Amino acid sequence: MSSSSVSHSDLVGRSASDVRASIRSGAYAGHTAGLAAGKLQCNLAVLPEEYALDFLRFCQRNPKPCPIVGVGDSGDPSLPTLGHDIDIRSDLSKYRVFRDGTLCDEVTNISDVWRDDFVTVALGCSFTFENALLRHGIPVRHIEKGLNVPMFRTNIELVPAGRFSGKMVVTMRPIPQGQVDQARDISRRYPQAHGAPIAFGDPAQIGIPYLAQPDWGDAVDINAGEVPVYWACGVTPQNVLLNAGLPICITHSPGHMLIADVAEDAETTILTKT
Amino acid sequence: MSSSSVSHSDLVGRSASDVRASIRSGAYAGHTAGLAAGKLQCNLAVLPEEYALDFLRFCQRNPKPCPIVGVGDSGDPSLPTLGHDIDIRSDLSKYRVFRDGTLCDEVTNISDVWRDDFVTVALGCSFTFENALLRHGIPVRHIEKGLNVPMFRTNIELVPAGRFSGKMVVTMRPIPQGQVDQARDISRRYPQAHGAPIAFGDPAQIGIPYLAQPDWGDAVDINAGEVPVYWACGVTPQNVLLNAGLPICITHSPGHMLIADVAEDAETTILTKT
Repeated sequence: MSSSSVSHSDLVGRSASDVRASIRSGAYAGHTAGLAAGKLQCNLAVLPEEYALDFLRFCQRNPKPCPIVGVGDSGDPSLPTLGHDIDIRSDLSKYRVFRDGTLCDEVTNISDVWRDDFVTVALGCSFTFENALLRHGIPVRHIEKGLNVPMFRTNIELVPAGRFSGKMVVTMRPIPQGQVDQARDISRRYPQAHGAPIAFGDPAQIGIPYLAQPDWGDAVDINAGEVPVYWACGVTPQNVLLNAGLPICITHSPGHMLIADVAEDAETTILTKT
Repeated sequence: MSSSSVSHSDLVGRSASDVRASIRSGAYAGHTAGLAAGKLQCNLAVLPEEYALDFLRFCQRNPKPCPIVGVGDSGDPSLPTLGHDIDIRSDLSKYRVFRDGTLCDEVTNISDVWRDDFVTVALGCSFTFENALLRHGIPVRHIEKGLNVPMFRTNIELVPAGRFSGKMVVTMRPIPQGQVDQARDISRRYPQAHGAPIAFGDPAQIGIPYLAQPDWGDAVDINAGEVPVYWACGVTPQNVLLNAGLPICITHSPGHMLIADVAEDAETTILTKT
């Protein structure tokens, strides 16, 4: 189960359900960018029920970095509002298991650590608005270059809830000056995927010292005539969860997202019965 | 405190904070339609913490009738993400107190029944998109006629969570045939206020037998060339709460909404620090 027998290119063009089946069987353990095009991909947080109410309050109060797109019943690994046959214990290609705020394990299946009191929270992901930018002819540098998006800690305080608090993490994409307004208008249509940018221009205004030194991901060039544009990032809730030091919590591994059956441009993230 | 010393017209044009202060002092106990124009108004649900996680899950799974716009800390009557000085115990002009699923009391202050384990949930309200329709020249019949919007039970099953389940309640507004698409596009921009319509045309398709006999509110005429358009309604969660038969829960009285400091057309319902 540790090595992939199916490649990323084998899965391009396959349905969300097919991709999940390949992941579930252990045949694929790679990243999910570009798979099940048009379907919502999600950040994952699994945590004990006793912390779930506060975590949902935290996400509700910080909807730009933490847009809630699905919440499971306690102990139930299915997410019927996001997909017909999702089993959250096996349907992501890589998970991170944290204990007391420390990364303990990176695994391809969490069945053996699953508990009856676990609550699954799925959060929106930037793939959704990046796809929309590309469809509208707005270039996305890190995708062009085959790099990971650059991510930065900021000085923007999050609204706390219970033991959850911290500062916002943002992604940066250089956008041609003449397309910044369009990029803002397009991404604003996707509140379940971080929505409009939270800032643009001078990184110092949000406490970023050097754009050439991202805290996560890869640095990208900012060409003449381009403006750095900052969006709230799904690493924010991961960071906050880590800092909260829960006895146990589980997230996806970066780039290894939950693929839903919901269309990424649907009005809500709730699967309608067909 | 039982009769209003300030009239609705005295409050038109006053700030959200001013209106809340008049309500808090007991000087005003009327409805809030048309007050604090441009600010978000909210449906209210207050319930014991032990039911709050399931209620939030229920709302997340049914975002059209139950758009969450604010959640308080347990026992905390403030809602800082919605307004600077909100005290949820006194800042609505009329409340309904339910015990074991039965309406027990209608009051102008809930300080004497407030408990340390109460969680406040604020949900979006149709005033927001109605204002947007009017701004775009789309007529809203019940407002024109000074009536309450007609509301109907439907056969649309809600996605359950814990003891919360039921069927969707909708509002109906007759819209001129040529403006239905525009009305849909405008209301879709307000996911925190029920979003786009859930259906239009034949009421039988969603289980409504007679448009002339609303289950709540007033019947309105549908003129030649108009189409009945159905939006998810904030009475849905009230009904669901009632049916859940909680030992205690509190809602606003119809038309007596929580007025927030957040602009109704803001990207999120989270007050940004100024």
